Amino acid sequence: MSLNKTLLSQRAAGLTPLSVGRLAATARERGAVDLASGVPLGNPPEAVLAAATAAMRAGHNQYAPGAGSPQLRAVVAERLRRDRAAVVDPEHEVTITSGATEGVLAALLTCVDPGDEVLVPEPWFESYPGAVRLVGAVPRPVPLTSDGWRLDIDVVRAAITPRTRAILLNTPHNPTGRVFSAAETAALMEVCVRQDIVCITDEVYDNFVFGRSEMTSPLDLPSAREHVIAVGSFSKSLQMSGWRLGYCVASPALTAGLRRVVERTTVCAPTPLQEGAAAVSTASSGAENFRSTREAMVERLAEAGMEVSPPEGGWFVFARIDRVTPLPAGEFATRLLDEAGVLVAPGSAFFADPRDGDRWIRTCFVRDFEIMDQGMKRLENYLRPAAW
Amino acid sequence: MSLNKTLLSQRAAGLTPLSVGRLAATARERGAVDLASGVPLGNPPEAVLAAATAAMRAGHNQYAPGAGSPQLRAVVAERLRRDRAAVVDPEHEVTITSGATEGVLAALLTCVDPGDEVLVPEPWFESYPGAVRLVGAVPRPVPLTSDGWRLDIDVVRAAITPRTRAILLNTPHNPTGRVFSAAETAALMEVCVRQDIVCITDEVYDNFVFGRSEMTSPLDLPSAREHVIAVGSFSKSLQMSGWRLGYCVASPALTAGLRRVVERTTVCAPTPLQEGAAAVSTASSGAENFRSTREAMVERLAEAGMEVSPPEGGWFVFARIDRVTPLPAGEFATRLLDEAGVLVAPGSAFFADPRDGDRWIRTCFVRDFEIMDQGMKRLENYLRPAAW
Ligand SMILES: Cc1ncc(COP(=O)(O)O)c(C=O)c1O
Ligand SMILES: Cc1ncc(COP(=O)(O)O)c(C=O)c1O
Repeated sequence: MSLNKTLLSQRAAGLTPLSVGRLAATARERGAVDLASGVPLGNPPEAVLAAATAAMRAGHNQYAPGAGSPQLRAVVAERLRRDRAAVVDPEHEVTITSGATEGVLAALLTCVDPGDEVLVPEPWFESYPGAVRLVGAVPRPVPLTSDGWRLDIDVVRAAITPRTRAILLNTPHNPTGRVFSAAETAALMEVCVRQDIVCITDEVYDNFVFGRSEMTSPLDLPSAREHVIAVGSFSKSLQMSGWRLGYCVASPALTAGLRRVVERTTVCAPTPLQEGAAAVSTASSGAENFRSTREAMVERLAEAGMEVSPPEGGWFVFARIDRVTPLPAGEFATRLLDEAGVLVAPGSAFFADPRDGDRWIRTCFVRDFEIMDQGMKRLENYLRPAAW
Repeated sequence: MSLNKTLLSQRAAGLTPLSVGRLAATARERGAVDLASGVPLGNPPEAVLAAATAAMRAGHNQYAPGAGSPQLRAVVAERLRRDRAAVVDPEHEVTITSGATEGVLAALLTCVDPGDEVLVPEPWFESYPGAVRLVGAVPRPVPLTSDGWRLDIDVVRAAITPRTRAILLNTPHNPTGRVFSAAETAALMEVCVRQDIVCITDEVYDNFVFGRSEMTSPLDLPSAREHVIAVGSFSKSLQMSGWRLGYCVASPALTAGLRRVVERTTVCAPTPLQEGAAAVSTASSGAENFRSTREAMVERLAEAGMEVSPPEGGWFVFARIDRVTPLPAGEFATRLLDEAGVLVAPGSAFFADPRDGDRWIRTCFVRDFEIMDQGMKRLENYLRPAAW
């Protein structure tokens, strides 16, 4: 008398395993050079390791306040003030989360109900559409322009319906490397405020901005503050993706909601690690460290025949493969892995219709220069068989 | 042109802040003796602290596999085998989560869709109804019997509708102290299997069982295994509630779903702390440590005029206050805090209709004996003003 064909919810049944992590595990097993995944190099700063150890020894091992450690919230506010001139009250506007991932989830739960719609600029970070579906909402792709991945406000407007409650922005952007301009941000926020749409802005790469680009954020617009939940992370800025520490910055009203949500999703982020992360108030390694790796990767992908524009920010290069292969990106990546021993991320995971990603691959330049060099050599050799 | 009166989702707007944590903070500020909240004493075992520190130093600081550290999954399987004779495959049936709290959330997301109904035995752990509402589902109270908080299978049956997808069991039970019997569990699981309802069983207190009671779990019934997600935690068994480590045990089919969900809720639990917790395969402090504190608290509450039955398991005593005060529990607790300097948890938070909790308070016996003694003296003196 089975009432349901499966015990899985529709939302869980509809999720696919995230592709990049799975590919990276395969690459590792086979000893391939992984140029795909975005995992920090190295370790958290020494002062942070020492402070976390001291916190465990000093007995900071039980539940933290749901809002997060007051010290860590103060560090978030201090960093935003110094780096971005944003005035944020750590008492009423900051909530610590288990990474930006829980930050985005909590933000969605805080302002979106089942059946509501969430705009997601496309291409997108692979986790987003699944996160939106998990909260029972419907992701609505907002295609970035084909000539430079700009956020066209008319495309945004056209995607809005009476059910639209939020837009899930990401800047600096994964996978395209865009840092949306002050003009794009202002136009977006004008629409958000007018239509009462919350802009959830995932800024995990906020201290990785290159060249003449400048970080701009919806958080910088005082008139839009009520309509912003800015999500940040310590994963990338302190090389601690395994510590699961992130944060949400929002108005006191939305923050009160976020805190009630986070109490029920995870109670709090890991206590001794929060104390550790609070030990330094600066991000230790930003754009500086990877400037030359980024430049070399962009140049060599272009020389290999791909179309690339230098990323304005973030960790990734999004490259068009038309001129180097007739294969769709998924097959191209499989061959590169099997025959050349180098892993790149095929574009299919970043689009609603995977075929839209057939012409694109994503590579990550946060690598030791030698690893990047080795991976690029394998790719270059594979694309130049005639030269052998 | 505001389309929405508020930017908060209905589900977030409908949540109240959890009461016990808030009361405990007030008690702390005022120097009162907190007999209400369930926070572990002490610290994780030395071997665990050392292993977590070593893991950080050895570079285990980046993302862990979404399923969890293989070592920690093996420890979970080993503990269940030894303590409960349950055969669990760590490869395909265990998922590490950020505490039992994320475990319950992930379990709900994995088998419940928006609009579905979830049965929740009542009284309940304060977080549950909010967690069910967060996933867009509807909590349906299943009142435990008034004569000893038994799970009456006819009451369960009567609460089932075509939308019922799960029941959220908790054994040993917070707040009542029940450990549901093998017969109650078997009757429940027969209904679950027949009606294709998933039993999410929160067993965070599984190694706190007293006297002649024995831990029984839906996990122990081989015929029901497809319909069980057992949620556990290291918070209580290793005194590490701030480390945010828990787990879900389920069939390979449900585990595959759980892992796809957890990838999007938090990515993974904190990497170096997982390595730390994996260093010991036994729970360090179980029922033994608090046996005498529990007995003394039960006895003294009874002598003070409350009706109590000794808890079979868990950390709490649920006491009826009819004979000591005409006040509703909330006001009684406020007076105790204000006038006697001792905090107890009023029953209102544990029922759908807060008034159903008016005759009940919950106390926690996981305390140093002297603290329990001091708190109970304050309570006793308050209830015996004539003796002054
Ligand atoms: C755009 C984006 N958001 C969020 C994350 C995850 O961040 P966290 O580790 O803080 O959960 C990543 C990681 O790759 C990312 O690229
Ligand atoms: C019944 C119950 N479930 C879950 C939890 C939370 O467990 P964790 O710290 O593993 O999230 C508690 C904590 O008090 C509890 O009483």
